[in-house]
Amino acid sequence: MKLIRFGEKGSEKPGVLLEDGKRIDVSSIVADFDYDFFKNDGLNKLAQADLSQCPSVAADVRLGAPVKRPGKIICIGLNFKDHAEESNMAIPAEPVVFFKATSSLVGPNDDVIIPKDSEKTDWEVELAFVMGKDASYVSQEEALDYLGGYVLHNDVSERAFQLEMGGQWVKGKSCDTFAPLGPYIATADEISDINNLKMWLTVNGETKQDGTTANLIFDIPYIISYLSRFMTLEAGDVISTGTPAGVGFGFNPQQYLKDGDVVELGIEGLGSSKQTFRAYQA
Amino acid sequence: MKLIRFGEKGSEKPGVLLEDGKRIDVSSIVADFDYDFFKNDGLNKLAQADLSQCPSVAADVRLGAPVKRPGKIICIGLNFKDHAEESNMAIPAEPVVFFKATSSLVGPNDDVIIPKDSEKTDWEVELAFVMGKDASYVSQEEALDYLGGYVLHNDVSERAFQLEMGGQWVKGKSCDTFAPLGPYIATADEISDINNLKMWLTVNGETKQDGTTANLIFDIPYIISYLSRFMTLEAGDVISTGTPAGVGFGFNPQQYLKDGDVVELGIEGLGSSKQTFRAYQA
Repeated sequence: MKLIRFGEKGSEKPGVLLEDGKRIDVSSIVADFDYDFFKNDGLNKLAQADLSQCPSVAADVRLGAPVKRPGKIICIGLNFKDHAEESNMAIPAEPVVFFKATSSLVGPNDDVIIPKDSEKTDWEVELAFVMGKDASYVSQEEALDYLGGYVLHNDVSERAFQLEMGGQWVKGKSCDTFAPLGPYIATADEISDINNLKMWLTVNGETKQDGTTANLIFDIPYIISYLSRFMTLEAGDVISTGTPAGVGFGFNPQQYLKDGDVVELGIEGLGSSKQTFRAYQA
Repeated sequence: MKLIRFGEKGSEKPGVLLEDGKRIDVSSIVADFDYDFFKNDGLNKLAQADLSQCPSVAADVRLGAPVKRPGKIICIGLNFKDHAEESNMAIPAEPVVFFKATSSLVGPNDDVIIPKDSEKTDWEVELAFVMGKDASYVSQEEALDYLGGYVLHNDVSERAFQLEMGGQWVKGKSCDTFAPLGPYIATADEISDINNLKMWLTVNGETKQDGTTANLIFDIPYIISYLSRFMTLEAGDVISTGTPAGVGFGFNPQQYLKDGDVVELGIEGLGSSKQTFRAYQA
């Protein structure tokens, strides 16, 4: 199943993207794709529901982030060897963990706002996943039982805010619109081998990132098990697994996004997204 | 006004603590103290409501965290000179910012669970505040217009998870039960001078922290204005302003909490809280 949310920003409804590419409105069956939905076995209920009477959604209706108000967005840093190297950072012995503010979520094709005083806004194509259940102290072997689905994520990052302003990375990861998510959440049965998906990103049509999920240092069962030692991963939480080489920060000279730039990204089986970057205007 | 939430964990209701110490149930007037409440001017509506018919709440009913499911918990690190010094860390030139998972919230007098494999669970009395409105790019001068109220917070921290496991601090700050919040949110009019409040913490009756909000390096208007450059602070978000000297990490030899230890803390005008620390049990 492929879950979408559609409609105007702030009043999205839940929908499903069908095999034939048609989009349907399932708001008569479930309230929304949020903590309560995942927590209360909504995925199974939706899979068993009769969707034949659901109205269709026009192809030009905006998509929102496919999960509403998750409890947290957790990101794994430096989880590709080639990206750690281009960043001149050590390959981590255990996962590097940081949070993005949930207020940074936007739809997959919404504009991304370059913050005021930003000169180093950068891109990061990432495989993210959404938790299907609360997970605390789970083993690697049972970890995938807690997974709700996979989703494409652009972990937009302001490198000066992240690295040059003291302390922790969160300042450069949490700006409004810095988490374009979607187009859809694909349940696990939609993906034949999550560890062998091409992932790519272009800026104004030019390829910048061209990787594969085969190169993750820490895989998803490891990440779920590891994180669940430190906190309960709640149903609906978004976890992003890291980016391969080819971010702007890694080029020499470095390349950063400016007003009007268009970023497109995708992961095999998880669709693609496209954001126009816009300078902040008061 | 002093806002409380009371009842069993997960099914708390909103209430108000009156001047005479009586607690009343205001669930007939507002749904809960959450994002929607603060966003939709709930504070003013509640202040203007007739509370005379609200039922009272027995004194022995459990208190929950006085805000439900905030979008984020943002903390300011090393915001007291004496605490930066005891931590052997530099006094920051600009605020050090990190997040705590919102899943770490518990009531002010709930047990705190020492995580599995933890040997360095520590305490931090902090002045926190709750946003009353969404704030983006606000000046220091207008910052306090966006504030909802003040609240006592124990920023419980696992120092090995925070500092010895690679990367960012979040692993040691986000464990379940690591954010006892309350007893209540005091609206700004309840506090005559927020910059001159005694704050204290004891472990098994022995004083460990004895500070004052007068010693904050970055004050609340500065923190709101600063953070709002990096992300929208949403109505209901919790922001914690840092701890004074006297944490376990700062003693020589270091002191950490063990099963059965009792921590009590308070801030003048914001009440006190008391947690028993318990070893994790599967």
